[in-house]
Amino acid sequence: MKKIVLASTSTLYGESYLAYLRETIVDLFQHSKEIIFIPYARPGGISHEAYTQNVASFFKELNIGVKGLHEFAAPTHALQQAKGIFTGGGNTFLLVKALHELGLMAGLKSIVEQGTPYLGTSAGSNIGGVNMQTTNDMPIVYPPSFETMGLVPFNINAHYLDPDPTLKHNGETRETRIREFHVFNTIPVVGLREGSWIAVHDEVVTTEGSRSSRIFKPNQEPIEIAPGTQIQF
Amino acid sequence: MKKIVLASTSTLYGESYLAYLRETIVDLFQHSKEIIFIPYARPGGISHEAYTQNVASFFKELNIGVKGLHEFAAPTHALQQAKGIFTGGGNTFLLVKALHELGLMAGLKSIVEQGTPYLGTSAGSNIGGVNMQTTNDMPIVYPPSFETMGLVPFNINAHYLDPDPTLKHNGETRETRIREFHVFNTIPVVGLREGSWIAVHDEVVTTEGSRSSRIFKPNQEPIEIAPGTQIQF
Repeated sequence: MKKIVLASTSTLYGESYLAYLRETIVDLFQHSKEIIFIPYARPGGISHEAYTQNVASFFKELNIGVKGLHEFAAPTHALQQAKGIFTGGGNTFLLVKALHELGLMAGLKSIVEQGTPYLGTSAGSNIGGVNMQTTNDMPIVYPPSFETMGLVPFNINAHYLDPDPTLKHNGETRETRIREFHVFNTIPVVGLREGSWIAVHDEVVTTEGSRSSRIFKPNQEPIEIAPGTQIQF
Repeated sequence: MKKIVLASTSTLYGESYLAYLRETIVDLFQHSKEIIFIPYARPGGISHEAYTQNVASFFKELNIGVKGLHEFAAPTHALQQAKGIFTGGGNTFLLVKALHELGLMAGLKSIVEQGTPYLGTSAGSNIGGVNMQTTNDMPIVYPPSFETMGLVPFNINAHYLDPDPTLKHNGETRETRIREFHVFNTIPVVGLREGSWIAVHDEVVTTEGSRSSRIFKPNQEPIEIAPGTQIQF
């Protein structure tokens, strides 16, 4: 029984860390007294220790313990024993490079598919897609591969942002970038606005949260789907 | 005598293609009756042919002919014979992948350093930096390397955008992304706002255009430099 939450962001504007996801997290980790946190995305270059401590402060209020994956000499074994796994946001290139170089990507996928509850936010959600090629992040390091877990049969664009008609700037919009992805790739893309997430319960995949999500496929106009809609490709 | 222009963007808001750079281009290519255009960045997935035609329309008004590099069976030889070279914008991952796979990156660098006038816009400017790791583009393809020409001893962030204090969105600002780059890299970064460009005349490197540029180094506060300032690292 797969239980997966892939959220667009950890934090809504003006709210505290993970606040909007609190009920969802309580449900996801209802049988988890302790979870493992994967800190490799290192937002702002924060250390693994400091990032894990921040996350532990939130989970302490839920009476859930947190250990950082970097603390284990045998990380694959630690993940196999885990009662829950959370991968935090930051830089997706950094996260994917670490998971590949530590040889953890395939093992993590298999463990989550066998039923260990998984939470991802931002970069931690991007790695639930087929590959990381629809990230917004800057390529600050060179990963040995862009392939990710493929927990869902599509890619995620986290922090999806609608075009701003007032912006007098010629950088590409998010939609233009995803359309360029589809000139060279056929994988569908779900644009997840902040406040939205993908929920997987066994084989049922839905979008949840406060806002609609935008679905992109090659050679088709994007469509909007309301929260609670099942995604089938 | 090196002659290089690396511009943040091809097009200013509300203006036509390359209009704000017209005088600069006339000066750069004053001895070039024909230039070679490198179309591999393919903005919006446009074909090499269509992209080259668009560029040729602009240069026709300056009485400069344009041939696309994709038209040549021996592209390195073509670049060696060229009187001027222009690499257009689009997706930097696509451009860098093509240049590496065609074995052109090192040759292009050497040809420009020997004095062939070079114009880059956006992605075409990013490849003038040491590597492409400060691009804003989406990783829609996987290049065999992130290394670029290093025509200047720093990286470029094209379309540099200041933080928008009204934006209620938690995606990283450009400045945050560049600071993350500097947690893992020491290469200085020049944030080039739209309307600005880097000019290289032999060994003198300046920023030019209508707006100041923002200089980022590891462990230092960014600084602003006015147009016309010489850059020395």
